[in-house]
Amino acid sequence: MKNKVGREIPSEICGRKLKPYRGAFATKPDRKHKATRIKFHDPRRGKVLRSIREAIKKVGLKDGDTISFHHHLRNGDAVVNMVLDTIAKMGIKDIRLASTALFPVHEKVIQHIKNGVVTRIEGSMNGPVGEFVSQGGKLKEPAILRSHGGRARAVASGELDINVAFIAAPICDDYGNCNGRYGKSAFGAMGYAYTDTVYADYTVVITDNLQPYPVTPPIVQQTFVDYVVEVESIGDPSGIQTGTLRITRSPARLKIARNAVKVLEAAGVLKNGFSVQAGAGGISLAATKFLHEYLKKHGIVGSFVMGGTTKYVIDMLEEGTMMKILDGQTFDLAAIESLRKNPMHVEINNTFYADIHSGGCAVDKLDAAFLGGTEIDLDFNVNVNTHSDGKLLHGIGGHQDVAAGAGITMILMPTMRGRIPTIRKEVTTVTTPGETVDVLVTERGIAVNPRREDLIEDLKGKVPLVDIEELYKRVTRFCKEPKPPKLGDEIVAIIEYRDGTVIDVVRNVKS
Amino acid sequence: MKNKVGREIPSEICGRKLKPYRGAFATKPDRKHKATRIKFHDPRRGKVLRSIREAIKKVGLKDGDTISFHHHLRNGDAVVNMVLDTIAKMGIKDIRLASTALFPVHEKVIQHIKNGVVTRIEGSMNGPVGEFVSQGGKLKEPAILRSHGGRARAVASGELDINVAFIAAPICDDYGNCNGRYGKSAFGAMGYAYTDTVYADYTVVITDNLQPYPVTPPIVQQTFVDYVVEVESIGDPSGIQTGTLRITRSPARLKIARNAVKVLEAAGVLKNGFSVQAGAGGISLAATKFLHEYLKKHGIVGSFVMGGTTKYVIDMLEEGTMMKILDGQTFDLAAIESLRKNPMHVEINNTFYADIHSGGCAVDKLDAAFLGGTEIDLDFNVNVNTHSDGKLLHGIGGHQDVAAGAGITMILMPTMRGRIPTIRKEVTTVTTPGETVDVLVTERGIAVNPRREDLIEDLKGKVPLVDIEELYKRVTRFCKEPKPPKLGDEIVAIIEYRDGTVIDVVRNVKS
Repeated sequence: MKNKVGREIPSEICGRKLKPYRGAFATKPDRKHKATRIKFHDPRRGKVLRSIREAIKKVGLKDGDTISFHHHLRNGDAVVNMVLDTIAKMGIKDIRLASTALFPVHEKVIQHIKNGVVTRIEGSMNGPVGEFVSQGGKLKEPAILRSHGGRARAVASGELDINVAFIAAPICDDYGNCNGRYGKSAFGAMGYAYTDTVYADYTVVITDNLQPYPVTPPIVQQTFVDYVVEVESIGDPSGIQTGTLRITRSPARLKIARNAVKVLEAAGVLKNGFSVQAGAGGISLAATKFLHEYLKKHGIVGSFVMGGTTKYVIDMLEEGTMMKILDGQTFDLAAIESLRKNPMHVEINNTFYADIHSGGCAVDKLDAAFLGGTEIDLDFNVNVNTHSDGKLLHGIGGHQDVAAGAGITMILMPTMRGRIPTIRKEVTTVTTPGETVDVLVTERGIAVNPRREDLIEDLKGKVPLVDIEELYKRVTRFCKEPKPPKLGDEIVAIIEYRDGTVIDVVRNVKS
Repeated sequence: MKNKVGREIPSEICGRKLKPYRGAFATKPDRKHKATRIKFHDPRRGKVLRSIREAIKKVGLKDGDTISFHHHLRNGDAVVNMVLDTIAKMGIKDIRLASTALFPVHEKVIQHIKNGVVTRIEGSMNGPVGEFVSQGGKLKEPAILRSHGGRARAVASGELDINVAFIAAPICDDYGNCNGRYGKSAFGAMGYAYTDTVYADYTVVITDNLQPYPVTPPIVQQTFVDYVVEVESIGDPSGIQTGTLRITRSPARLKIARNAVKVLEAAGVLKNGFSVQAGAGGISLAATKFLHEYLKKHGIVGSFVMGGTTKYVIDMLEEGTMMKILDGQTFDLAAIESLRKNPMHVEINNTFYADIHSGGCAVDKLDAAFLGGTEIDLDFNVNVNTHSDGKLLHGIGGHQDVAAGAGITMILMPTMRGRIPTIRKEVTTVTTPGETVDVLVTERGIAVNPRREDLIEDLKGKVPLVDIEELYKRVTRFCKEPKPPKLGDEIVAIIEYRDGTVIDVVRNVKS
């Protein structure tokens, strides 16, 4: 069957019935949240165990189970590898790995796929693991990729039913209260651990900094924690500052960032109380910086800023262009320090941030958002997962969530990368539906989704508007669309929309 | 059948099967948490409604439903009356009222019982409503009284299944994020609202101070809130400082307080890292003050203090005798101010505080506790609910929870009140089992539970120890046990133990 963005979706795969994407707010929840196990801790016993092995024994992990991790240490995380190595040594197999995201540091997962320890993956795969899975024939079932909000939804509803959540914590007490703010491995907010600890059957905190009770604020709370294990090191927090976190120096890209702010100015939203999602890509960082400068110059005070929290966002708070930061993921040392000391820098969890099947999430409250992408098509559908060669290299992050929530969703994107145009007749993979995307900002002009007649009216004469088809023609005049990738028949990954429907599938890349 | 404290418990009442109390940690959970309704909020619609009536319509409240409230405004609360009046006007009947606690200000509930709007009550009844219910023939089913932790447990397990939770908030945004810290009606922590908002089918926040998004910290979070209603006033926060909150001036009672600190000194627990539950009764307040002075004099720094948070507790934090406060309920202006400004003053919820059927609760971590009571028997069973005339006048509070959790649970109690002895052969009602009580501190001597041989050894020669039977004899020599109250056959209330078993029942008082 074809879904609403025109993608062919099988009705069933590996025994799992797939619901096709039907529209950004069309699919309402039709079940209850997972009924969680009621825990019981005899206070006369302790929770601190001597090793990960002992914890795995105590929680009774067995073949076929699902384990989860949160990715706040990003490319500095040591816990996923540590736990998988232990599981492998204990002879447990057929594990479904549900890390919120995997990074290049988790390349070792490939070994565990080869040896049968990991047979299924649900979560983002940034880099090598994604590329490996792209080849086909690696996993027992297609991987499932979800947005931050979509994952929270899936965990809470029991669609992604977690047996054991492993929580990496740079500070923890003997009852499992922990946060990400203090200790040698401090990484800041740990919002993505929330649904895992609440809904997993068992929660094990792995820490390299056991401190006296009570560790506060208890972002992960004792009431959800079964065991605590102390290890030498949970990772290297310098790994949280990966790749995308440098501001762009390219004049063309800086122009995109400036144009993004001009769009907001022309749209008339830059006034007191304004709220924005700041991205973490090089262009979005620049746009955030320019936005801050604009607000400062005009004496405007926004209400809140979200997004991967970087020093550019901290500047807004500290220099008074934003009242508050809502932070689910902290990206540099300045931001960690701010979270520790500034009560207006508020940590939020993944449900609060972006779960569409909740009483309401923070993305709904965004006036505007800076987002990126690998490709965009003429209907404004955006790809963030694959490259034009078909390889699955990136997670969804909050892309779908923010696009659906924000008043003005802007995709900041150069018209080409290398010699490959980013505007395509058809994107390799649809991640975010065009109906939730409002503006494409490029170095060659600004295209507004025709659906947003109001916005076109506001922007006319103020910014260099261009029809997206015209933009496509201009670019492909001197830089041709690449040949379609050679794909096989195997579906290696399902791209879920945030509401649990399927927006696209990814097929194996023939080498 | 007789339960473990020797009380006769019917096996069933009004179709509800009762499980007899079997021991403080004997009853493990045998079900899952309530599977909660998955919410869905269309961001294109708002949550703010014009009236309580509109909210009641929107959530579809109907005859027979259960509504809940949290009691942080205590005797200053206006929301319970406001909502019940509206329900009455709308012609809805047969409501189960599950306020965490009712106070004299809620005397109007009696009218709503008489007119059939309220037919069942689960929650504490302090004062007039309790006295009214004590007469018998008033409710369709016996009231159920639970401890703070026991209520959290019952709500989370679905035993107390809430249809609509009404949350009084002195500050709230249009998405329902709220806390108890700011605004003209600020009352401090709102920990007891936690399980209600998480597990109720619908949550309605009633506020007298609607502020721009996002209100932080979001103690009650938008993800759980369905509707927000703004009213003129949610109550008078001066009403949080009720009755028990004055330090005692009686020389005999001050002696009890001093003795309590001497017990702790003799037991050798007053050292760095020490933790304590401070009570809110006149003697407990004095004991807290004396403890603070002792720690200060000896340069000891404790880890944390809990309990109804008063200025005496704030002094400990500010003058450095305690590292942290864990606060579920704030009792005066100094404490509200501290919660606003001091990050070491940490708000906790009711599950975190005291739920035995969780991964572990804070009461487990207490080295010592100061508690009160109306009566104690020779097995150290304590009554906090009824008076010797049989009238049901008080809630359980955290009494059962703290007693079970604390290393040294002390009951601070004068040997008589008026001309009535407090030490009884048999208490009128068993609230807290003697197996969880360690020491009775009176003005006539200190009795240690024989179960605590270790403690008797530690205290011998250091404090005036006396056998509880000897103490009983001394007191009843010049002050006789009162005549047993004239009770009828109707069970007007069930006293649940924190694990959901029944520790006692309360029968109607014949006038």
